Amino acid sequence: MESDFIQWLRQQLPSSDRLALGPGDDAAVLRIADRADCVVTTDLLTDQVDFVLSDVDPQRVGHKALAVNLSDLAAMAARPVAVVISLALPHKGALELVRALYSGMLPLAERFGVVIAGGDTNSWDGPLVISVTAIGETTEHGPLTRRGAQPGDRILVTGELGGSILGRHLDVEPRCNEALYLHSHHDLHAGIDISDGLSTDLAHITDESRCGAVIDSASIPIADAARTLSATNVDGRLPLEHALNDGEDFELLLAVPPTTAEQIIRDTSLGVPVTDIGEFVTERGLWLVEDGERRPLSPGGYQHRFDP
Amino acid sequence: MESDFIQWLRQQLPSSDRLALGPGDDAAVLRIADRADCVVTTDLLTDQVDFVLSDVDPQRVGHKALAVNLSDLAAMAARPVAVVISLALPHKGALELVRALYSGMLPLAERFGVVIAGGDTNSWDGPLVISVTAIGETTEHGPLTRRGAQPGDRILVTGELGGSILGRHLDVEPRCNEALYLHSHHDLHAGIDISDGLSTDLAHITDESRCGAVIDSASIPIADAARTLSATNVDGRLPLEHALNDGEDFELLLAVPPTTAEQIIRDTSLGVPVTDIGEFVTERGLWLVEDGERRPLSPGGYQHRFDP
Repeated sequence: MESDFIQWLRQQLPSSDRLALGPGDDAAVLRIADRADCVVTTDLLTDQVDFVLSDVDPQRVGHKALAVNLSDLAAMAARPVAVVISLALPHKGALELVRALYSGMLPLAERFGVVIAGGDTNSWDGPLVISVTAIGETTEHGPLTRRGAQPGDRILVTGELGGSILGRHLDVEPRCNEALYLHSHHDLHAGIDISDGLSTDLAHITDESRCGAVIDSASIPIADAARTLSATNVDGRLPLEHALNDGEDFELLLAVPPTTAEQIIRDTSLGVPVTDIGEFVTERGLWLVEDGERRPLSPGGYQHRFDP
Repeated sequence: MESDFIQWLRQQLPSSDRLALGPGDDAAVLRIADRADCVVTTDLLTDQVDFVLSDVDPQRVGHKALAVNLSDLAAMAARPVAVVISLALPHKGALELVRALYSGMLPLAERFGVVIAGGDTNSWDGPLVISVTAIGETTEHGPLTRRGAQPGDRILVTGELGGSILGRHLDVEPRCNEALYLHSHHDLHAGIDISDGLSTDLAHITDESRCGAVIDSASIPIADAARTLSATNVDGRLPLEHALNDGEDFELLLAVPPTTAEQIIRDTSLGVPVTDIGEFVTERGLWLVEDGERRPLSPGGYQHRFDP
């Protein structure tokens, strides 16, 4: 029964100064810092689209559902505060499943100091659906947005890209601490997390910033998984294409002035490598430089199908 | 395509002083009033459980999904600020459906001054799922909680109860303005919105307030729909039983001192009738007085099935 689970959950949740009230009432009451704005993001994950429940440990699914939302807060350089979690669980095995999902979420929430403030736990005849809404707060540096990249800015990326489907898309490590550190110590002009794919998310920045971008193919940090996928896959896509288009890397993509780029790359306080992959330019559009040649680059990420 | 819809949506949304940023970035940035706390609630609705999409106008489904969340803010006497909306749409007809859903939500959002701050619009092979998270802010009177009912307090309810399945469960009128008015003009001890059913939601108040309640069957405001349902239904349930257990009435259930109860009932500023249906008592439990006899009342609302 739903109520048995809620009782179990309330015992699992640590108390928090942020949570003035909840869970267990009609809504949770959160303390947001003085003079901070409230940053809100939501991501809904479904079985067969964002994960294949029959093939994976549901703890990893729970981890992913929370992590991708925290990654959106990272993209805004917002401090994570709380999440609410709505579930549609298949009737059969619902209690076991919901406990496993939460067992994946609770350690991640604790690690990032995020309150699980409430949720709505439903069961139904359909497959698993997880909807998480994350709430953060701006720091004194304000939010980091997609708008603000300037021609001449360098394009920086954390970590490595491509082939996340081999496992990294589940074991997401949200770059919250890195984003907060970078936003407070360096001059960031714009930022996004790579969820749709480097090419598509770079286009999101250039669209919002009304500029273009040129990336250098040789400098893109290609993940080993992208090479593995390329070697085993039948579709003949190169490791570079995976790095450009696969998505679900959940790395940070940043626009910063050239001197800042050098400072960030030299900054040993960051626990993750940062790579300079190119430059923002005045002319609208995306280009890839490969073997000295510059050719147009089309955003190639995932889009949800809306059939007629 | 998802992106076509997002473009359409951005044209539909009025601007708001509350929305410092969004939709269109990784998260929305909201202005919460100084010294206010942030109130958060979420409700997920699924086809066949909360509505039957094939039988109803999807605009009403959109209206319901938003309204039930606003009703939770009403239950906290919180001022509505913003919502984020996550959808899992069946591939076929996704664009038409999502526009109809939003056409049901937009007028309600406008009427209550609520910003649609963002969302996540997905398509998949499954049935329609709508997950809404609503964010409000406390007033200077603080949140209205389930905790605080005292023995001797009167039990008040707005509107009429029972039979909402005949249509009212879709055309929900959230009692936000009534709750804010009552909380600022009268001394409310505890409150909840009736979503699970009068008996179950009353038990939520008595559980949290560590007291009991006695309700007078003759005073319960029974909706015409409860009588219609009783007359046509084969399960032999009386109109009173529908009013006690049906749920999805989305009326306010309040605990107030006796003098406050009289003041509220005489208060002509409220646009909705308020009825005194009984009393909170020291002894833990729920009782119903019928024809002068007092008998135990079992909470009888809906619970989600968690099968082994």
